[in-house]
Amino acid sequence: MVDFEAFFKITYGLFIVSSGDKTKGNGFISNTVFQVTADPPRFAVCCNKNNFTAGFITRTGVFSISILEQDTSSEIMGRFGFRSGRDFDKLEGMSLKYGETGVPIVLNASIAYLECTVIQTIDTGTHLMFIGELVQSAVLDNSKEPLTYLYYRQVKKGSAPKNAPTYIDKSKLEALKSSGPLKRYKCTACGYIFDEEKEGIKFSDLHDSWTCPVCGSEKSDFIEV
Amino acid sequence: MVDFEAFFKITYGLFIVSSGDKTKGNGFISNTVFQVTADPPRFAVCCNKNNFTAGFITRTGVFSISILEQDTSSEIMGRFGFRSGRDFDKLEGMSLKYGETGVPIVLNASIAYLECTVIQTIDTGTHLMFIGELVQSAVLDNSKEPLTYLYYRQVKKGSAPKNAPTYIDKSKLEALKSSGPLKRYKCTACGYIFDEEKEGIKFSDLHDSWTCPVCGSEKSDFIEV
Repeated sequence: MVDFEAFFKITYGLFIVSSGDKTKGNGFISNTVFQVTADPPRFAVCCNKNNFTAGFITRTGVFSISILEQDTSSEIMGRFGFRSGRDFDKLEGMSLKYGETGVPIVLNASIAYLECTVIQTIDTGTHLMFIGELVQSAVLDNSKEPLTYLYYRQVKKGSAPKNAPTYIDKSKLEALKSSGPLKRYKCTACGYIFDEEKEGIKFSDLHDSWTCPVCGSEKSDFIEV
Repeated sequence: MVDFEAFFKITYGLFIVSSGDKTKGNGFISNTVFQVTADPPRFAVCCNKNNFTAGFITRTGVFSISILEQDTSSEIMGRFGFRSGRDFDKLEGMSLKYGETGVPIVLNASIAYLECTVIQTIDTGTHLMFIGELVQSAVLDNSKEPLTYLYYRQVKKGSAPKNAPTYIDKSKLEALKSSGPLKRYKCTACGYIFDEEKEGIKFSDLHDSWTCPVCGSEKSDFIEV
């Protein structure tokens, strides 16, 4: 017996994991960042093999971790969490710092960051786990709380993007729920609700290029609620 | 430049990771439990090589994760987090369930649990990372919040045991602090304060076998505050 709800009891933070160099880079929202040894300090990040950033980490051997604040905007969550860097330059217009290795570090909505060089790459199936040794770390804002996945789910009403290790297949999730006759669709990036009654149009009739009016996520990032 | 305070901005939960079989087992407090793939669900736990439970996981190939509730008592934290199973049977007297693999699962203070079989073991230096495939999972109490490391540090005033990946060497930590003339010592397990003025005896004069009156941690688990 597997109860998926048990997975949600595991506490995670939320982070932007970035990689690349001064000419080109990318970043994505991760909830699986953790310290694996104390001395020397080493940190692990998990990354779906399809993730655009995974290629940058593999090629450059460096990554940065930006630890997000509790009040991270849905624009930042949508930009880094639910859209692909294959389609646009996620780092353009962001507040960036380049680390000692040249890796881009996103400063927007960040209370601290860590810069690491990859010392080990582990294939866990659908994901790669990169283990990095710390190059430098800094606190940017000591007055703010870190964003947790629980807070994001409960308060911001967000859910995991489909490349996250914690993503749950919608068909499985919906089989768990007693689905009422509601015809409302939720943006999984920012929590925006598309209500067919209010909008006067069926969600399925919206054009495929339609995007979330709040955060710009694609139509396919919506789920019926 | 390495700012250790940045490490504390990473959010973690707190868990009892157990292993063994129906005849003998052990468990320890871990803050590094995380999902590494969604399909099939796989979970990773980090474990110091000196940790008594590491031997059980290596020998039996199974482990369980008990997700602790926010109000976990200092007795449970002290028993599983700051004392070794080499010295006494941690599981004796606990509320246990044996999983499908026969692994013991601690139910005390737990809101959910997961049972896994090891499919991969990774050497990260001082620690081993075990990656396990899910056998079963269950929610035990949906009404309670999970315990986070931040809550434990801020509200319970606890810190990491010395085998934890997030442990910071006291000498390093104290070099960071401007040490005043205070002569008070804190139990790193439960937060109990030994005040020399109140007790009328110097902490250094206490016998080496003296233990924390609240949670039973050893004298060496106290730090000057």
